[in-house]
Amino acid sequence: MKKKKKKVNAAILIIGNEILSGRTQDKNIAFISNWLNLNCGISVLEVRIIPDVEKTIIKNIRLLSKKFNYVFTTGGIGPTHDDITALSIAKAFKVKYGYHDEAFKILESYYGKEKFNDGRKKMAKMPLIAKLIYNPSSAAPGFITKNVISLPGVPSILNSMIENCKRYLVGGLKVHSETINLFTVESNIAYQLGRIQKKYKEVVDIGSYPFFRLGKIGVSIVSRSTSKIKLSKVNKDLMRVIKSKKIKILNI
Amino acid sequence: MKKKKKKVNAAILIIGNEILSGRTQDKNIAFISNWLNLNCGISVLEVRIIPDVEKTIIKNIRLLSKKFNYVFTTGGIGPTHDDITALSIAKAFKVKYGYHDEAFKILESYYGKEKFNDGRKKMAKMPLIAKLIYNPSSAAPGFITKNVISLPGVPSILNSMIENCKRYLVGGLKVHSETINLFTVESNIAYQLGRIQKKYKEVVDIGSYPFFRLGKIGVSIVSRSTSKIKLSKVNKDLMRVIKSKKIKILNI
Repeated sequence: MKKKKKKVNAAILIIGNEILSGRTQDKNIAFISNWLNLNCGISVLEVRIIPDVEKTIIKNIRLLSKKFNYVFTTGGIGPTHDDITALSIAKAFKVKYGYHDEAFKILESYYGKEKFNDGRKKMAKMPLIAKLIYNPSSAAPGFITKNVISLPGVPSILNSMIENCKRYLVGGLKVHSETINLFTVESNIAYQLGRIQKKYKEVVDIGSYPFFRLGKIGVSIVSRSTSKIKLSKVNKDLMRVIKSKKIKILNI
Repeated sequence: MKKKKKKVNAAILIIGNEILSGRTQDKNIAFISNWLNLNCGISVLEVRIIPDVEKTIIKNIRLLSKKFNYVFTTGGIGPTHDDITALSIAKAFKVKYGYHDEAFKILESYYGKEKFNDGRKKMAKMPLIAKLIYNPSSAAPGFITKNVISLPGVPSILNSMIENCKRYLVGGLKVHSETINLFTVESNIAYQLGRIQKKYKEVVDIGSYPFFRLGKIGVSIVSRSTSKIKLSKVNKDLMRVIKSKKIKILNI
Protein backbone atom coordinates (compact mmCIF):
# COMPACT_ATOMS: atom_id res chain seq x y z
CA MET A 1 0.00 0.00 0.00
CA LYS A 2 1.27 3.45 -0.96
CA LYS A 3 0.70 6.42 1.32
CA LYS A 4 -0.72 9.69 0.10
CA LYS A 5 -0.49 12.77 2.25
CA LYS A 6 -4.13 13.67 1.98
CA LYS A 7 -7.49 12.51 3.22
CA VAL A 8 -8.75 9.38 1.52
CA ASN A 9 -12.35 8.25 1.97
CA ALA A 10 -14.60 5.28 1.36
CA ALA A 11 -18.21 4.17 1.43
CA ILE A 12 -19.56 0.79 2.51
CA LEU A 13 -22.48 -0.77 0.62
CA ILE A 14 -24.09 -3.64 2.50
CA ILE A 15 -26.11 -5.77 0.09
CA GLY A 16 -28.59 -8.09 1.74
CA ASN A 17 -32.24 -8.49 2.65
CA GLU A 18 -31.27 -10.29 5.87
CA ILE A 19 -29.62 -7.14 7.30
CA LEU A 20 -32.45 -4.84 6.18
CA SER A 21 -35.14 -7.06 7.69
CA GLY A 22 -33.33 -7.11 11.02
CA ARG A 23 -32.93 -10.88 10.92
CA THR A 24 -29.14 -10.55 11.00
CA GLN A 25 -27.22 -8.00 13.04
CA ASP A 26 -24.51 -6.47 10.85
CA LYS A 27 -20.96 -6.82 12.13
CA ASN A 28 -19.06 -5.83 9.00
CA ILE A 29 -19.52 -2.06 9.09
CA ALA A 30 -17.62 -1.48 12.33
CA PHE A 31 -14.96 -4.03 11.37
CA ILE A 32 -14.22 -2.58 7.91
CA SER A 33 -14.35 1.01 9.13
CA ASN A 34 -11.98 0.37 12.03
CA TRP A 35 -9.60 -1.59 9.84
CA LEU A 36 -9.52 1.10 7.12
CA ASN A 37 -8.95 3.82 9.64
CA LEU A 38 -6.24 2.12 11.67
CA ASN A 39 -4.38 0.38 8.86
CA CYS A 40 -4.83 2.60 5.83
CA GLY A 41 -5.76 6.08 7.03
CA ILE A 42 -9.01 5.82 5.08
CA SER A 43 -12.20 7.28 6.59
CA VAL A 44 -15.61 5.80 5.89
CA LEU A 45 -17.97 8.71 5.18
CA GLU A 46 -21.16 6.90 4.22
CA VAL A 47 -22.76 3.50 4.64
CA ARG A 48 -25.82 2.21 2.82
CA ILE A 49 -27.73 -1.00 3.35
CA ILE A 50 -29.80 -2.05 0.35
CA PRO A 51 -31.82 -5.10 -0.76
CA ASP A 52 -30.75 -7.79 -3.27
CA VAL A 53 -32.33 -5.88 -6.16
CA GLU A 54 -30.29 -5.46 -9.32
CA LYS A 55 -31.34 -1.95 -10.31
CA THR A 56 -30.84 -0.70 -6.73
CA ILE A 57 -27.33 -2.19 -6.59
CA ILE A 58 -26.41 -0.72 -10.00
CA LYS A 59 -27.64 2.74 -9.04
CA ASN A 60 -25.75 2.76 -5.76
CA ILE A 61 -22.51 1.41 -7.25
CA ARG A 62 -22.52 4.14 -9.91
CA LEU A 63 -23.25 6.90 -7.42
CA LEU A 64 -20.93 5.85 -4.59
CA SER A 65 -17.98 4.94 -6.85
CA LYS A 66 -18.06 8.46 -8.25
CA LYS A 67 -18.45 10.16 -4.89
CA PHE A 68 -15.82 8.30 -2.84
CA ASN A 69 -12.25 7.08 -3.37
CA TYR A 70 -13.23 3.48 -2.59
CA VAL A 71 -16.46 1.52 -2.19
CA PHE A 72 -16.56 -1.70 -0.18
CA THR A 73 -19.49 -4.00 -0.88
CA THR A 74 -20.38 -6.93 1.37
CA GLY A 75 -22.70 -9.80 0.55
CA GLY A 76 -24.22 -11.31 -2.56
CA ILE A 77 -21.17 -13.11 -3.98
CA GLY A 78 -22.14 -16.70 -3.08
CA PRO A 79 -23.50 -19.53 -5.24
CA THR A 80 -27.28 -18.98 -4.94
CA HIS A 81 -29.90 -17.13 -6.99
CA ASP A 82 -29.95 -14.17 -4.58
CA ASP A 83 -26.21 -13.55 -5.07
CA ILE A 84 -26.26 -10.87 -7.75
CA THR A 85 -23.53 -8.46 -6.65
CA ALA A 86 -20.92 -9.45 -9.28
CA LEU A 87 -23.36 -9.25 -12.21
CA SER A 88 -24.79 -5.95 -10.97
CA ILE A 89 -21.31 -4.39 -10.70
CA ALA A 90 -20.46 -5.51 -14.24
CA LYS A 91 -23.69 -3.89 -15.42
CA ALA A 92 -23.03 -0.72 -13.40
CA PHE A 93 -19.66 -0.24 -15.12
CA LYS A 94 -20.81 -1.70 -18.45
CA VAL A 95 -17.95 -4.22 -18.50
CA LYS A 96 -17.93 -7.88 -19.54
CA TYR A 97 -19.18 -10.49 -17.05
CA GLY A 98 -18.24 -14.17 -17.18
CA TYR A 99 -15.91 -16.83 -15.82
CA HIS A 100 -12.79 -15.20 -14.46
CA ASP A 101 -9.89 -17.48 -15.42
CA GLU A 102 -7.90 -17.20 -12.23
CA ALA A 103 -10.97 -17.48 -9.98
CA PHE A 104 -12.17 -20.51 -11.94
CA LYS A 105 -8.82 -22.26 -11.46
CA ILE A 106 -8.73 -21.50 -7.73
CA LEU A 107 -12.23 -22.87 -7.18
CA GLU A 108 -11.75 -25.90 -9.42
CA SER A 109 -8.61 -26.92 -7.56
CA TYR A 110 -10.28 -26.27 -4.17
CA TYR A 111 -13.38 -28.40 -4.85
CA GLY A 112 -11.86 -30.91 -7.27
CA LYS A 113 -13.25 -31.36 -10.79
CA GLU A 114 -16.02 -33.77 -9.75
CA LYS A 115 -17.54 -31.63 -7.04
CA PHE A 116 -17.21 -28.39 -9.00
CA ASN A 117 -20.93 -28.00 -9.77
CA ASP A 118 -22.79 -25.07 -11.35
CA GLY A 119 -23.45 -23.31 -8.04
CA ARG A 120 -19.76 -23.36 -7.21
CA LYS A 121 -18.80 -22.33 -10.73
CA LYS A 122 -21.05 -19.29 -10.35
CA MET A 123 -18.60 -17.96 -7.73
CA ALA A 124 -15.97 -17.65 -10.50
CA LYS A 125 -18.28 -15.39 -12.51
CA MET A 126 -17.50 -11.71 -12.14
CA PRO A 127 -16.47 -8.65 -14.15
CA LEU A 128 -13.61 -9.89 -16.35
CA ILE A 129 -11.52 -6.79 -15.61
CA ALA A 130 -11.66 -7.55 -11.86
CA LYS A 131 -8.58 -8.40 -9.82
CA LEU A 132 -8.92 -11.03 -7.11
CA ILE A 133 -8.90 -10.71 -3.35
CA TYR A 134 -7.81 -14.09 -2.04
CA ASN A 135 -9.90 -15.96 0.49
CA PRO A 136 -7.92 -18.12 2.93
CA SER A 137 -11.11 -19.45 4.61
CA SER A 138 -13.25 -20.88 1.84
CA ALA A 139 -11.43 -20.24 -1.47
CA ALA A 140 -14.16 -18.22 -3.25
CA PRO A 141 -12.35 -14.96 -3.93
CA GLY A 142 -13.52 -11.39 -3.50
CA PHE A 143 -12.61 -8.95 -6.23
CA ILE A 144 -11.93 -5.32 -7.06
CA THR A 145 -13.60 -3.71 -10.08
CA LYS A 146 -12.24 -0.19 -10.69
CA ASN A 147 -12.53 1.34 -7.18
CA VAL A 148 -15.17 -1.09 -5.90
CA ILE A 149 -14.03 -3.89 -3.58
CA SER A 150 -16.45 -6.79 -3.19
CA LEU A 151 -16.27 -9.02 -0.13
CA PRO A 152 -18.57 -11.76 1.18
CA GLY A 153 -21.18 -11.12 3.87
CA VAL A 154 -20.15 -13.80 6.38
CA PRO A 155 -18.09 -11.85 8.95
CA SER A 156 -15.53 -14.60 9.73
CA ILE A 157 -14.70 -15.02 6.03
CA LEU A 158 -14.63 -11.28 5.39
CA ASN A 159 -12.32 -10.75 8.36
CA SER A 160 -9.89 -13.36 7.03
CA MET A 161 -9.72 -11.59 3.64
CA ILE A 162 -9.37 -7.98 4.67
CA GLU A 163 -5.55 -7.91 4.74
CA ASN A 164 -5.57 -9.04 1.10
CA CYS A 165 -7.32 -5.79 0.13
CA LYS A 166 -4.35 -3.70 1.23
CA ARG A 167 -2.33 -4.07 -1.95
CA TYR A 168 -5.08 -2.35 -3.93
CA LEU A 169 -5.50 0.64 -1.62
CA VAL A 170 -3.69 3.96 -1.63
CA GLY A 171 -3.85 5.12 1.96
CA GLY A 172 -4.23 8.59 3.37
CA LEU A 173 -3.42 10.53 6.47
CA LYS A 174 -4.25 8.55 9.57
CA VAL A 175 -7.00 9.91 11.80
CA HIS A 176 -5.91 9.75 15.44
CA SER A 177 -8.42 9.71 18.25
CA GLU A 178 -8.46 10.38 21.98
CA THR A 179 -11.24 9.32 24.31
CA ILE A 180 -11.97 10.63 27.80
CA ASN A 181 -14.70 8.87 29.76
CA LEU A 182 -16.39 11.00 32.39
CA PHE A 183 -18.85 10.33 35.19
CA THR A 184 -21.14 13.22 34.32
CA VAL A 185 -24.08 14.03 32.07
CA GLU A 186 -23.74 15.63 28.64
CA SER A 187 -25.70 18.72 29.56
CA ASN A 188 -23.18 19.57 32.32
CA ILE A 189 -20.41 20.13 29.78
CA ALA A 190 -22.35 20.87 26.59
CA TYR A 191 -21.59 24.60 26.59
CA GLN A 192 -17.83 24.20 27.15
CA LEU A 193 -17.56 21.39 24.58
CA GLY A 194 -19.26 23.61 22.03
CA ARG A 195 -16.74 26.39 22.68
CA ILE A 196 -13.75 24.06 22.32
CA GLN A 197 -15.20 22.61 19.11
CA LYS A 198 -15.60 26.11 17.68
CA LYS A 199 -11.96 26.95 18.54
CA TYR A 200 -10.68 23.87 16.65
CA LYS A 201 -13.27 23.82 13.87
CA GLU A 202 -12.10 22.06 10.69
CA VAL A 203 -9.05 20.45 12.40
CA VAL A 204 -10.50 18.42 15.29
CA ASP A 205 -13.87 16.67 15.46
CA ILE A 206 -15.22 16.43 18.98
CA GLY A 207 -18.06 14.01 19.67
CA SER A 208 -19.91 13.36 22.91
CA TYR A 209 -21.55 9.98 23.57
CA PRO A 210 -23.53 9.07 26.67
CA PHE A 211 -23.01 5.62 28.23
CA PHE A 212 -24.33 3.54 31.12
CA ARG A 213 -21.74 1.50 32.97
CA LEU A 214 -21.48 0.04 36.47
CA GLY A 215 -24.96 1.42 37.11
CA LYS A 216 -23.78 4.97 36.49
CA ILE A 217 -24.39 7.47 33.72
CA GLY A 218 -21.35 8.80 31.89
CA VAL A 219 -20.16 10.55 28.75
CA SER A 220 -17.36 9.59 26.38
CA ILE A 221 -15.70 12.59 24.77
CA VAL A 222 -14.04 11.48 21.54
CA SER A 223 -11.71 13.83 19.67
CA ARG A 224 -10.51 12.90 16.19
CA SER A 225 -7.92 14.61 14.00
CA THR A 226 -5.14 13.93 11.53
CA SER A 227 -2.94 16.22 13.67
CA LYS A 228 -1.62 14.80 16.95
CA ILE A 229 -0.54 18.28 18.04
CA LYS A 230 -4.03 19.76 17.69
CA LEU A 231 -5.43 16.71 19.43
CA SER A 232 -3.24 17.22 22.48
CA LYS A 233 -4.23 20.91 22.56
CA VAL A 234 -7.90 19.93 22.61
CA ASN A 235 -7.11 17.44 25.35
CA LYS A 236 -5.55 20.16 27.50
CA ASP A 237 -8.60 22.40 27.04
CA LEU A 238 -10.88 19.50 27.95
CA MET A 239 -8.88 18.68 31.09
CA ARG A 240 -9.16 22.31 32.21
CA VAL A 241 -12.98 22.08 32.00
CA ILE A 242 -13.02 18.71 33.74
CA LYS A 243 -10.90 20.00 36.64
CA SER A 244 -12.87 23.23 37.05
CA LYS A 245 -16.11 21.24 37.22
CA LYS A 246 -14.59 18.56 39.49
CA ILE A 247 -15.75 15.75 37.21
CA LYS A 248 -14.47 12.21 37.86
CA ILE A 249 -12.61 10.48 35.02
CA LEU A 250 -13.27 6.80 34.41
CA ASN A 251 -10.24 4.91 33.17
CA ILE A 252 -11.19 2.04 30.91
CA MET B 1 -52.28 2.49 14.58
CA LYS B 2 -54.54 2.03 11.57
CA LYS B 3 -54.01 -0.89 9.19
CA LYS B 4 -53.79 -0.42 5.47
CA LYS B 5 -54.07 -3.40 3.16
CA LYS B 6 -50.98 -2.61 1.18
CA LYS B 7 -47.22 -2.63 1.52
CA VAL B 8 -45.84 0.18 3.66
CA ASN B 9 -42.12 0.92 3.71
CA ALA B 10 -39.54 2.89 5.65
CA ALA B 11 -35.91 3.98 5.60
CA ILE B 12 -33.58 4.31 8.58
CA LEU B 13 -31.10 7.20 8.71
CA ILE B 14 -28.37 6.69 11.33
CA ILE B 15 -26.75 10.03 12.12
CA GLY B 16 -23.44 9.76 13.91
CA ASN B 17 -19.68 9.87 13.38
CA GLU B 18 -19.22 7.21 16.09
CA ILE B 19 -21.03 4.57 14.02
CA LEU B 20 -19.27 5.53 10.77
CA SER B 21 -15.82 5.42 12.37
CA GLY B 22 -16.50 1.94 13.73
CA ARG B 23 -16.04 3.09 17.33
CA THR B 24 -19.59 2.07 18.17
CA GLN B 25 -21.34 -1.03 16.86
CA ASP B 26 -24.85 -0.08 15.73
CA LYS B 27 -27.68 -1.96 17.44
CA ASN B 28 -30.61 0.21 16.36
CA ILE B 29 -31.00 -0.91 12.75
CA ALA B 30 -31.92 -4.53 13.53
CA PHE B 31 -34.11 -3.46 16.48
CA ILE B 32 -36.15 -0.86 14.56
CA SER B 33 -36.47 -3.05 11.46
CA ASN B 34 -37.67 -6.07 13.44
CA TRP B 35 -40.09 -3.99 15.46
CA LEU B 36 -41.57 -2.31 12.37
CA ASN B 37 -41.97 -5.59 10.60
CA LEU B 38 -43.49 -7.57 13.47
CA ASN B 39 -45.66 -4.86 14.98
CA CYS B 40 -46.65 -2.63 12.10
CA GLY B 41 -46.22 -4.59 8.88
CA ILE B 42 -43.73 -1.97 7.69
CA SER B 43 -40.65 -3.09 5.72
CA VAL B 44 -37.35 -1.23 5.89
CA LEU B 45 -36.05 -0.92 2.33
CA GLU B 46 -32.96 1.24 2.83
CA VAL B 47 -30.58 2.25 5.60
CA ARG B 48 -28.01 5.01 5.46
CA ILE B 49 -25.35 5.92 7.98
CA ILE B 50 -24.09 9.49 7.63
CA PRO B 51 -21.86 11.90 9.60
CA ASP B 52 -23.01 14.80 11.83
CA VAL B 53 -22.84 17.24 8.91
CA GLU B 54 -25.78 19.59 8.41
CA LYS B 55 -25.90 19.67 4.61
CA THR B 56 -25.57 15.88 4.44
CA ILE B 57 -28.44 15.41 6.90
CA ILE B 58 -30.65 17.91 5.03
CA LYS B 59 -30.01 16.25 1.67
CA ASN B 60 -30.76 12.76 2.99
CA ILE B 61 -33.91 13.84 4.87
CA ARG B 62 -35.32 15.46 1.73
CA LEU B 63 -34.52 12.49 -0.47
CA LEU B 64 -35.59 9.67 1.85
CA SER B 65 -38.79 11.37 3.07
CA LYS B 66 -39.94 11.61 -0.55
CA LYS B 67 -38.94 8.07 -1.47
CA PHE B 68 -40.35 6.15 1.52
CA ASN B 69 -43.55 6.19 3.59
CA TYR B 70 -41.58 6.79 6.81
CA VAL B 71 -38.03 7.74 7.74
CA PHE B 72 -36.60 6.88 11.16
CA THR B 73 -33.57 8.89 12.26
CA THR B 74 -31.42 7.90 15.21
CA GLY B 75 -28.87 10.06 16.99
CA GLY B 76 -28.06 13.74 17.22
CA ILE B 77 -30.90 14.91 19.47
CA GLY B 78 -28.93 15.38 22.71
CA PRO B 79 -27.66 18.55 24.41
CA THR B 80 -24.20 18.96 22.84
CA HIS B 81 -22.82 20.88 19.85
CA ASP B 82 -22.70 17.77 17.65
CA ASP B 83 -26.46 17.19 18.11
CA ILE B 84 -27.82 18.87 14.98
CA THR B 85 -30.57 16.50 13.84
CA ALA B 86 -33.55 18.65 14.93
CA LEU B 87 -32.22 21.85 13.33
CA SER B 88 -31.26 20.02 10.13
CA ILE B 89 -34.76 18.51 9.80
CA ALA B 90 -36.35 21.94 10.28
CA LYS B 91 -34.08 23.27 7.51
CA ALA B 92 -34.81 20.28 5.25
CA PHE B 93 -38.55 20.96 5.42
CA LYS B 94 -38.16 24.76 5.67
CA VAL B 95 -40.25 24.92 8.84
CA LYS B 96 -39.75 27.00 12.00
CA TYR B 97 -37.26 25.77 14.61
CA GLY B 98 -37.34 26.78 18.27
CA TYR B 99 -38.50 25.82 21.75
CA HIS B 100 -41.36 23.35 21.50
CA ASP B 101 -43.81 24.31 24.26
CA GLU B 102 -44.76 20.80 25.34
CA ALA B 103 -41.16 19.50 25.19
CA PHE B 104 -39.97 22.51 27.18
CA LYS B 105 -42.53 21.84 29.92
CA ILE B 106 -41.68 18.13 30.10
CA LEU B 107 -37.95 18.83 30.46
CA GLU B 108 -38.39 21.71 32.89
CA SER B 109 -40.52 19.60 35.20
CA TYR B 110 -38.09 16.64 34.89
CA TYR B 111 -34.94 18.61 35.77
CA GLY B 112 -36.51 21.27 38.00
CA LYS B 113 -36.18 24.98 37.18
CA GLU B 114 -32.75 25.39 38.81
CA LYS B 115 -31.02 22.55 36.99
CA PHE B 116 -32.63 23.32 33.64
CA ASN B 117 -29.50 24.75 31.99
CA ASP B 118 -28.92 25.76 28.36
CA GLY B 119 -27.70 22.31 27.29
CA ARG B 120 -30.86 20.71 28.63
CA LYS B 121 -33.05 23.43 27.15
CA LYS B 122 -31.54 22.66 23.75
CA MET B 123 -33.32 19.29 23.87
CA ALA B 124 -36.65 21.16 23.72
CA LYS B 125 -35.64 22.86 20.48
CA MET B 126 -37.06 21.21 17.38
CA PRO B 127 -39.31 21.90 14.40
CA LEU B 128 -42.35 23.69 15.89
CA ILE B 129 -44.76 21.59 13.82
CA ALA B 130 -43.34 18.38 15.35
CA LYS B 131 -45.39 16.05 17.54
CA LEU B 132 -43.66 14.42 20.49
CA ILE B 133 -42.62 10.84 21.08
CA TYR B 134 -42.48 10.41 24.83
CA ASN B 135 -39.36 9.10 26.53
CA PRO B 136 -39.98 7.04 29.68
CA SER B 137 -36.22 6.63 30.34
CA SER B 138 -34.74 10.10 30.40
CA ALA B 139 -37.57 12.57 29.58
CA ALA B 140 -36.02 14.22 26.47
CA PRO B 141 -38.64 13.45 23.84
CA GLY B 142 -38.23 12.22 20.29
CA PHE B 143 -40.46 13.80 17.66
CA ILE B 144 -42.15 13.31 14.33
CA THR B 145 -41.88 16.00 11.63
CA LYS B 146 -44.11 15.17 8.66
CA ASN B 147 -43.14 11.53 7.95
CA VAL B 148 -39.75 11.68 9.70
CA ILE B 149 -39.49 10.13 13.17
CA SER B 150 -36.46 11.20 15.22
CA LEU B 151 -35.20 9.00 18.03
CA PRO B 152 -32.06 9.14 20.19
CA GLY B 153 -28.98 7.04 19.43
CA VAL B 154 -28.58 5.30 22.80
CA PRO B 155 -30.17 1.87 22.22
CA SER B 156 -31.68 1.40 25.70
CA ILE B 157 -33.47 4.76 25.49
CA LEU B 158 -34.57 4.21 21.89
CA ASN B 159 -35.94 0.78 22.80
CA SER B 160 -38.00 2.26 25.62
CA MET B 161 -39.58 4.82 23.26
CA ILE B 162 -40.40 2.68 20.26
CA GLU B 163 -43.94 1.75 21.35
CA ASN B 164 -44.75 5.46 21.55
CA CYS B 165 -44.16 5.76 17.79
CA LYS B 166 -47.05 3.44 17.01
CA ARG B 167 -49.81 6.04 17.22
CA TYR B 168 -48.22 7.97 14.35
CA LEU B 169 -47.82 5.02 11.99
CA VAL B 170 -50.25 3.60 9.47
CA GLY B 171 -49.29 -0.05 9.18
CA GLY B 172 -49.29 -2.31 6.17
CA LEU B 173 -49.55 -5.96 5.32
CA LYS B 174 -47.41 -8.06 7.61
CA VAL B 175 -44.51 -9.91 6.06
CA HIS B 176 -44.39 -13.48 7.36
CA SER B 177 -41.22 -15.49 7.31
CA GLU B 178 -40.19 -19.14 7.55
CA THR B 179 -36.67 -20.34 8.22
CA ILE B 180 -35.23 -23.80 7.60
CA ASN B 181 -31.71 -24.46 8.86
CA LEU B 182 -29.83 -27.15 7.00
CA PHE B 183 -26.56 -28.97 7.52
CA THR B 184 -25.36 -28.54 3.96
CA VAL B 185 -23.50 -26.03 1.81
CA GLU B 186 -25.21 -23.43 -0.37
CA SER B 187 -23.81 -24.79 -3.60
CA ASN B 188 -25.50 -28.17 -2.98
CA ILE B 189 -28.97 -26.63 -3.27
CA ALA B 190 -28.31 -23.46 -5.27
CA TYR B 191 -29.86 -24.77 -8.49
CA GLN B 192 -33.06 -26.03 -6.85
CA LEU B 193 -33.46 -22.86 -4.76
CA GLY B 194 -33.16 -20.79 -7.92
CA ARG B 195 -35.92 -22.82 -9.59
CA ILE B 196 -38.28 -22.45 -6.62
CA GLN B 197 -37.57 -18.71 -6.46
CA LYS B 198 -38.42 -18.37 -10.16
CA LYS B 199 -41.71 -20.24 -9.64
CA TYR B 200 -42.79 -17.86 -6.84
CA LYS B 201 -41.22 -14.68 -8.23
CA GLU B 202 -42.84 -11.46 -6.96
CA VAL B 203 -44.81 -13.24 -4.18
CA VAL B 204 -42.14 -14.95 -2.06
CA ASP B 205 -38.56 -13.80 -1.41
CA ILE B 206 -36.19 -16.68 -0.79
CA GLY B 207 -32.82 -15.94 0.76
CA SER B 208 -29.97 -18.30 1.55
CA TYR B 209 -27.49 -17.51 4.33
CA PRO B 210 -24.51 -19.66 5.30
CA PHE B 211 -23.74 -20.17 9.01
CA PHE B 212 -21.19 -21.91 11.20
CA ARG B 213 -22.59 -23.61 14.29
CA LEU B 214 -21.42 -26.41 16.55
CA GLY B 215 -18.33 -26.64 14.37
CA LYS B 216 -20.40 -27.42 11.30
CA ILE B 217 -21.24 -25.49 8.16
CA GLY B 218 -24.89 -24.89 7.42
CA VAL B 219 -27.34 -22.79 5.43
CA SER B 220 -30.45 -20.95 6.61
CA ILE B 221 -33.15 -20.75 3.98
CA VAL B 222 -35.40 -17.80 4.76
CA SER B 223 -38.66 -17.32 2.84
CA ARG B 224 -40.60 -14.09 3.26
CA SER B 225 -44.05 -13.18 1.94
CA THR B 226 -47.22 -11.32 2.83
CA SER B 227 -49.12 -14.50 1.88
CA LYS B 228 -49.05 -17.39 4.34
CA ILE B 229 -50.49 -19.73 1.72
CA LYS B 230 -47.71 -19.06 -0.80
CA LEU B 231 -45.20 -19.41 2.01
CA SER B 232 -46.42 -22.88 2.91
CA LYS B 233 -46.31 -23.87 -0.78
CA VAL B 234 -42.67 -22.78 -0.97
CA ASN B 235 -42.02 -24.73 2.21
CA LYS B 236 -43.43 -27.89 0.66
CA ASP B 237 -41.24 -27.47 -2.43
CA LEU B 238 -38.20 -26.89 -0.23
CA MET B 239 -38.93 -30.00 1.87
CA ARG B 240 -39.14 -32.08 -1.31
CA VAL B 241 -35.62 -30.97 -2.31
CA ILE B 242 -34.29 -31.53 1.20
CA LYS B 243 -35.68 -35.09 1.32
CA SER B 244 -34.46 -36.00 -2.15
CA LYS B 245 -30.95 -34.80 -1.25
CA LYS B 246 -31.08 -36.45 2.20
CA ILE B 247 -30.05 -33.21 3.92
CA LYS B 248 -30.25 -33.03 7.71
CA ILE B 249 -32.44 -30.29 9.22
CA LEU B 250 -31.19 -28.46 12.30
CA ASN B 251 -33.95 -27.42 14.65
CA ILE B 252 -33.14 -24.23 16.51
